[in-house]
Amino acid sequence: MEIIDNAAAESAAEGFFRIALGVEYKGSRYHGWQRQAGDVLSVQQTLEEALSRVADSPVSIHCAGRTDASVHASGQVVHFDTQAVRSMKAWTMGANINLPHDISVTWAEQMPEHFHARFKAMARRYRYIIYNDQVRPAHLGDQVTWNHRPLDVERMAQAAAYLVGTHDFSSFRAGQCQAKSPIKQIHHLRVTRHGKMIVLDIRASAFLHHMVRNIAGVLMTIGAGQRPAEWAGEVLAQRDRRAAGVTAHPYGLYLVQVEYPQEYLLPQRYIGPHFLSGFESLAADDPQVIC
Amino acid sequence: MEIIDNAAAESAAEGFFRIALGVEYKGSRYHGWQRQAGDVLSVQQTLEEALSRVADSPVSIHCAGRTDASVHASGQVVHFDTQAVRSMKAWTMGANINLPHDISVTWAEQMPEHFHARFKAMARRYRYIIYNDQVRPAHLGDQVTWNHRPLDVERMAQAAAYLVGTHDFSSFRAGQCQAKSPIKQIHHLRVTRHGKMIVLDIRASAFLHHMVRNIAGVLMTIGAGQRPAEWAGEVLAQRDRRAAGVTAHPYGLYLVQVEYPQEYLLPQRYIGPHFLSGFESLAADDPQVIC
Repeated sequence: MEIIDNAAAESAAEGFFRIALGVEYKGSRYHGWQRQAGDVLSVQQTLEEALSRVADSPVSIHCAGRTDASVHASGQVVHFDTQAVRSMKAWTMGANINLPHDISVTWAEQMPEHFHARFKAMARRYRYIIYNDQVRPAHLGDQVTWNHRPLDVERMAQAAAYLVGTHDFSSFRAGQCQAKSPIKQIHHLRVTRHGKMIVLDIRASAFLHHMVRNIAGVLMTIGAGQRPAEWAGEVLAQRDRRAAGVTAHPYGLYLVQVEYPQEYLLPQRYIGPHFLSGFESLAADDPQVIC
Repeated sequence: MEIIDNAAAESAAEGFFRIALGVEYKGSRYHGWQRQAGDVLSVQQTLEEALSRVADSPVSIHCAGRTDASVHASGQVVHFDTQAVRSMKAWTMGANINLPHDISVTWAEQMPEHFHARFKAMARRYRYIIYNDQVRPAHLGDQVTWNHRPLDVERMAQAAAYLVGTHDFSSFRAGQCQAKSPIKQIHHLRVTRHGKMIVLDIRASAFLHHMVRNIAGVLMTIGAGQRPAEWAGEVLAQRDRRAAGVTAHPYGLYLVQVEYPQEYLLPQRYIGPHFLSGFESLAADDPQVIC
């Protein structure tokens, strides 16, 4: 056990500790992040059960981004409140001992009470990974989106440029989306090829439901030569979901990073997923992040 | 259907075609390559059933390297004989339609009758992939070998140098190995780091049973600082399986390439597994291979 410092002792006097965790998971077996009624496997429930064992009392968690069924995360952030006195190492290792092989807690950090994994997040970053080859990938079937048509990455990057900035993204919004406003700011949307893999790297203030997958669908249509690059701008301007076409598969989608105000000083691990960790050209985009 | 050329027509007159296939698979669900009695899932049986549907008659296949349970392949080569008249595209696509998501046929080629996937192979190449991090990898749990101790890749490379060349590899041979001789030639054994991944790349004339996994075990022990680099040479010199210690896990092991005499002109695809295909520094080792 680490020695609990003064800040922790003060929080304890007020009744609880607020703990933040970094979480990575393979979403394939789960019906999404969110706990659901009935006998449905969710990442949230699985993680809550593991943490409850470590705390020896029920734990409820809040996450930064509720991922859909089959969607993965390498940089999910969650928080929970507990009266259990544990070192950060005990939270991390204790959770991992009680978790299945496809969910890992990567770090734990005690936070001030005003921290909130969802409401304090300033930016979220996703990567959408396309495996571009004639032959179906036998090794990563549920962790990349297979596209057998040769895709032109330069065209896709030209198209992506239309979407960067602050726009009304109604054309890329799922019907069941609960966001108050369709206006979001995309900070960057990079399209790079690494051998057979194409990585879409997208950072925004927040995302509408299915927004990344709908963007991926439009970019793949353009990359395959079925539409010109300008079509991305036309779809955006229409502000109508019917303009964008089919939502791309969830398999290649990863929540890779959530950013908070500097005062919270959360650990920076790496921009995942980790099977990309040796892609030097991707790492070059983020020299500040430890791989 | 492609037009069947003269060589094919001649073979048909003699009664059959000999077809070679490139095969990649994720071994996690399978009890190894080899067909077994009873209700045991094997890659061989699954592939034979798919090909039998395409041929509309029973197909028996021979492979270049019989992989163990949980071991993967990106460059397995097989051959079979058939009287069915099909184009190479029909064999590839037809097999893939009838195969599960974790086995893919990557190419098909008609071969002369003297070709044999196993007996004509001159060299085999494996990659053993270690995920080196304190935290268990949630995304590739069954496709890499997790080692949480910091590994020194330079020490491992020094140790690897003792094993290159022609030696008696009895210390690295499983008890149940059926090879006639323990003397094999290792052409190269490279150890490289790519972010959190460490890749052992090993090419040899042939391998003893568990040879790569036993070498991986010795190199990881040395990389973790438990033994000096010279220990690899000492283990080799003892010619006794008990000298090498524990056999490393199968999860990170991939059969990535099989080489044949030039006359057979088999398609060169890439040195897998494909989640490494964007690792520029690995590709630099094999400039002749298309990634």
